[in-house]
Amino acid sequence: MSNDALPSLDFFLSLVEAASFITLPKFRTRLAADAKVKPGVKFDPVTDADREAEIAIREIIKSAYPDHSILGEEFGTTGVGPIQWVIDPIDGTKPYLCGIPVWGTLIGVTVDGRATRGIMSQPYTGEFFWGDQSEAFSESARGRSTLRTSNVSALSEAICHTTSPEPFTRRSGRGFAKLSSAVKFTRYGGECYAFAMLAAGQIDLCVEPSMQPYDIVPLIPIIESAGGIVTRFDGGRAERGGKVLASANRALHEAALEMLNDGC
Amino acid sequence: MSNDALPSLDFFLSLVEAASFITLPKFRTRLAADAKVKPGVKFDPVTDADREAEIAIREIIKSAYPDHSILGEEFGTTGVGPIQWVIDPIDGTKPYLCGIPVWGTLIGVTVDGRATRGIMSQPYTGEFFWGDQSEAFSESARGRSTLRTSNVSALSEAICHTTSPEPFTRRSGRGFAKLSSAVKFTRYGGECYAFAMLAAGQIDLCVEPSMQPYDIVPLIPIIESAGGIVTRFDGGRAERGGKVLASANRALHEAALEMLNDGC
Repeated sequence: MSNDALPSLDFFLSLVEAASFITLPKFRTRLAADAKVKPGVKFDPVTDADREAEIAIREIIKSAYPDHSILGEEFGTTGVGPIQWVIDPIDGTKPYLCGIPVWGTLIGVTVDGRATRGIMSQPYTGEFFWGDQSEAFSESARGRSTLRTSNVSALSEAICHTTSPEPFTRRSGRGFAKLSSAVKFTRYGGECYAFAMLAAGQIDLCVEPSMQPYDIVPLIPIIESAGGIVTRFDGGRAERGGKVLASANRALHEAALEMLNDGC
Repeated sequence: MSNDALPSLDFFLSLVEAASFITLPKFRTRLAADAKVKPGVKFDPVTDADREAEIAIREIIKSAYPDHSILGEEFGTTGVGPIQWVIDPIDGTKPYLCGIPVWGTLIGVTVDGRATRGIMSQPYTGEFFWGDQSEAFSESARGRSTLRTSNVSALSEAICHTTSPEPFTRRSGRGFAKLSSAVKFTRYGGECYAFAMLAAGQIDLCVEPSMQPYDIVPLIPIIESAGGIVTRFDGGRAERGGKVLASANRALHEAALEMLNDGC
């Protein structure tokens, strides 16, 4: 399938704009949060904004592309076929609830299971980040910037990011501690925003020990098109989630994987 | 001393604007970072932006208030007297280096050691947060909003925030783990921005086990004027830093302190 047959950036922008009409007015309103039940997770919040935004996105896709499959965080999988939309209406519901603008609306498309284009939209800061296998850029009222990962290749010079220490198991935590002690510094918190900043060359490593497909699929084309690498800790493609490492370049990726797997 | 004798919000705004002329153009430029040597801290970054912004702020203060003392993160204490300016030119140098807009320029004033007014400015999102013991509000292009802490009084309903697990010692970590298991959820990362969101009623508890005066003094008037409470873990005033807890209200503060001190 040629890339021309795939939905355009303008269509993706219509989706994230529809989502922002729901997410932005509810941001910083002390929204009620229900707990989703996930094994091993103490409290995984979901709000009306997550659900309503996903419904809005799904409706637009279904109208334009009735034969495409859709996988969304809140409403599971609908349809079958080679082209699948992968949606996280609010990645980072915790920072969303906290009023901290590092959450994002993530929308990606896979073709035969491979992430081919994706967007991350942060409506409060008014930015989006886009990758489609030919280019990667961010855009805001400040203008458009090409996304290009860093050329930092030594762990000792690398900036590492993870969202929280909590999802690490004893085994994955050992590997992460080893990596963390080897890098320049590790910062916590950041959710999808940290992956966008990896694509932008600000962060060199993003480590997440427990991702779902909708957490990572939309980010893969942004990172890869910016020159970065995303795999599972076992080196395989990350579209199905799991333990995921994103790196600015191959040399750094291999060095970091070695550390991460040392504890496992 | 009456509050009328203290510098006005407009003067504070001239300071943070001067800082933003330095910090904002350097944001997202993959700035070089030097390591400051602090006991027990692996890597505490400082950049030219931190140093230049503090110099700019100091120069303006010295011109307008030559008899005031100044305590800044990068250049220590100058002058003596009952009125002291307390400056962190970039609180959150790590997120600043990561390209994540949760850093801020913090400027506060103490009178006889007590924090009386303060500002947190985040120039990328175009917001500032202000408190002066009579009112607390935030302002951006979206307008002005009164800051008011939440009335969540049960730990089980409370949202907790801390910047990183790394500064906790074995003892303070035990208390924090106890608190963290009692709250609705804990989110990591956020630096000064999390304290601003506590003042805004989005977050209920901010825990930091190792603060310097310039990290917290400017935030105290914002939180207190919004109805919140800030103390050290021992219940004493937080102007001198140390282990600091900020809470939305007294009931929550007392319940959280009990947990935090249980491990210590």
